[in-house]
Amino acid sequence: MAENDRRVDAPLLIESRDAAGVARLTLNRPEAFNALSEGLLDALAEALGRLAADDTVRVIVLAGAGRAFCAGHDLREMRATPSHDYYRRLFDRCTRVMMAIQKMPQPVIARVQGIATAAGCQLVAMCDLAVAADDARFAVSGVNLGLFCSTPGVALSRNMSRKQAMEMLLTGDMIDAATARERGLVNRVVPALQLDDEVARLAAGICAKPAEAVAAGKGLFYRQLEMGIEAAYQLAGQTMACNMMEESALEGVQAFLEKRPPSW
Amino acid sequence: MAENDRRVDAPLLIESRDAAGVARLTLNRPEAFNALSEGLLDALAEALGRLAADDTVRVIVLAGAGRAFCAGHDLREMRATPSHDYYRRLFDRCTRVMMAIQKMPQPVIARVQGIATAAGCQLVAMCDLAVAADDARFAVSGVNLGLFCSTPGVALSRNMSRKQAMEMLLTGDMIDAATARERGLVNRVVPALQLDDEVARLAAGICAKPAEAVAAGKGLFYRQLEMGIEAAYQLAGQTMACNMMEESALEGVQAFLEKRPPSW
Amino acid sequence: MAENDRRVDAPLLIESRDAAGVARLTLNRPEAFNALSEGLLDALAEALGRLAADDTVRVIVLAGAGRAFCAGHDLREMRATPSHDYYRRLFDRCTRVMMAIQKMPQPVIARVQGIATAAGCQLVAMCDLAVAADDARFAVSGVNLGLFCSTPGVALSRNMSRKQAMEMLLTGDMIDAATARERGLVNRVVPALQLDDEVARLAAGICAKPAEAVAAGKGLFYRQLEMGIEAAYQLAGQTMACNMMEESALEGVQAFLEKRPPSW
Repeated sequence: MAENDRRVDAPLLIESRDAAGVARLTLNRPEAFNALSEGLLDALAEALGRLAADDTVRVIVLAGAGRAFCAGHDLREMRATPSHDYYRRLFDRCTRVMMAIQKMPQPVIARVQGIATAAGCQLVAMCDLAVAADDARFAVSGVNLGLFCSTPGVALSRNMSRKQAMEMLLTGDMIDAATARERGLVNRVVPALQLDDEVARLAAGICAKPAEAVAAGKGLFYRQLEMGIEAAYQLAGQTMACNMMEESALEGVQAFLEKRPPSW
Repeated sequence: MAENDRRVDAPLLIESRDAAGVARLTLNRPEAFNALSEGLLDALAEALGRLAADDTVRVIVLAGAGRAFCAGHDLREMRATPSHDYYRRLFDRCTRVMMAIQKMPQPVIARVQGIATAAGCQLVAMCDLAVAADDARFAVSGVNLGLFCSTPGVALSRNMSRKQAMEMLLTGDMIDAATARERGLVNRVVPALQLDDEVARLAAGICAKPAEAVAAGKGLFYRQLEMGIEAAYQLAGQTMACNMMEESALEGVQAFLEKRPPSW
Repeated sequence: MAENDRRVDAPLLIESRDAAGVARLTLNRPEAFNALSEGLLDALAEALGRLAADDTVRVIVLAGAGRAFCAGHDLREMRATPSHDYYRRLFDRCTRVMMAIQKMPQPVIARVQGIATAAGCQLVAMCDLAVAADDARFAVSGVNLGLFCSTPGVALSRNMSRKQAMEMLLTGDMIDAATARERGLVNRVVPALQLDDEVARLAAGICAKPAEAVAAGKGLFYRQLEMGIEAAYQLAGQTMACNMMEESALEGVQAFLEKRPPSW
């Protein structure tokens, strides 16, 4: 991967897109299990904004350096400013990062090893897709400290059934990668040594599709989820009609009819 | 089955209800993997409208002739008219057929063999119930041609969890019947040779219940899904009170109390 | 357990909280499979109201005496008053009990053995968590009597995927405990002899967390489920900021940073 944007001491490593169009963001506070400090949240917000505007980037991989994916908020930082106003702004800032993932035109794949807890579990839940090492574990464990994971619960309850989410939120207990896959929190589970290969394979498949179809489809997907089915269909029909008028779709369908690969 | 409405060359075979009250619609363009041409969509719309109004019909089975259930839209037809307006009307027409299934007073069971892809997968997702042969496969594969399956995604994301749906939409990959069952896209998977028997068994069980309870219950089910839980309960309570006042329910409950079969 | 409120002949046994803060309500009409008579619904409503206001109660266990958890409405009572107005009021009363469970500040755990059918299945679905004996069975079987389980369907369709719920509603068939767990209707399945131990273990874990975090988190959880994701995050962020300002959370986080247990 190109490493022009990489700074080894930065809280976020940004690897510019490779030849296929895959960019990689690596949470880089391994000594703190990649806790989401204000600095890291700001770096994430900035990097996601930059990547969203770069149409040479086709897929974004979100990873964590070291033994953990992400352990959630930086509790030392949080505890240092016991102010309601500060906490409001902090959760707002975190929410903006989480929503930025969903609003990106490119799919974002979480690459998960070790633990993904609290807002770290939320990050996984907010990504479009997630691939986990088989020894990864997930929890929304704030309740163990007296801080119920309400914002992570927003994402978690949109990934798995309500009793499953409620149990995790009330007990703070870990679930393993296989359970996370069964419940819908991650898509694929592979041995840790194959994690990068599996993520690369999944990303490469998506990079092979026309960007405009992927971007329009992703955006429509999350919007229609919040609509009644009639309104959802109306918007989806509009989206597909526009999509079909793209040169890439007309060529893709034509190539299919001629039994040849599309020339994109 | 009665075959009075059957025309072997028609794009849709309509088998009138059998003695139990089961009617069967068979997509009949096997040479085109039962692709949903305009003619087939129109025939489906008309047949569903006719069956909805026929209170001797208790259950509808939706099947596909030949090796596939349905491969989605007719791409040759679509490609021949590259017009935004045409595509809008085509997707609207398809949506009306999809919503007609949900609005039928009778349950509709998809009988799936071979592939169910794109709008074919959407048909399965929109049916109330689905039974699949164990070698059936499902995909929303439009993205492979540059046409993201946005309208099928509306149905798919209402059958399975969002990351599972998103992976299918972004990769275009097939899932097998067992996976479809685990995710909630189909209810039952059986060996191909037992497919008709299993569908008949499921249909017969439903035909044994009073039609008015089934129709009111099905209609309420989809309406309440789009409501907040308090409003959902209010409407469901009204529906059940009306249902309980039906002769069939009063007799059914009375028979239960007297430990005898109901005389419906 | 303290048994000061216990009356052996009452339709509902109320065991006051034990030392850990767990109260237990036992449906006590074993000869009628704990059918929800008007008297039992009223007793439940009153008991839940009382427990909700008692801040020494941390978790509520809902159980059934005898061989069944609960077989739904009392059909003899229902059949005796064939009046639309009566049925409306009956379902309203039942809905208020069901919603009271969700609105309690304390988590409610269903302890399920034997059958949980119709409104009995609905009770399980409405509880925050559920633990079942491995021989427990679940159905929404009203359709067998001509009375579609529309109100239980409201709860059921918020626990499992729509085709799974629809199949249960249309067929009236039982599912076993393992299937209920896979679908999300129950959290844990254990041998019948271990049922009380497993419920006690789950409850004890929750009792160990600060009550204010649990109450705020539970309330927020159900509210945000009915919101679009942006509004959900906004409300969840407010809830977490308030939660973080609680003494228990500040101490919990501080203790975590100091690697010691919190002194709550």
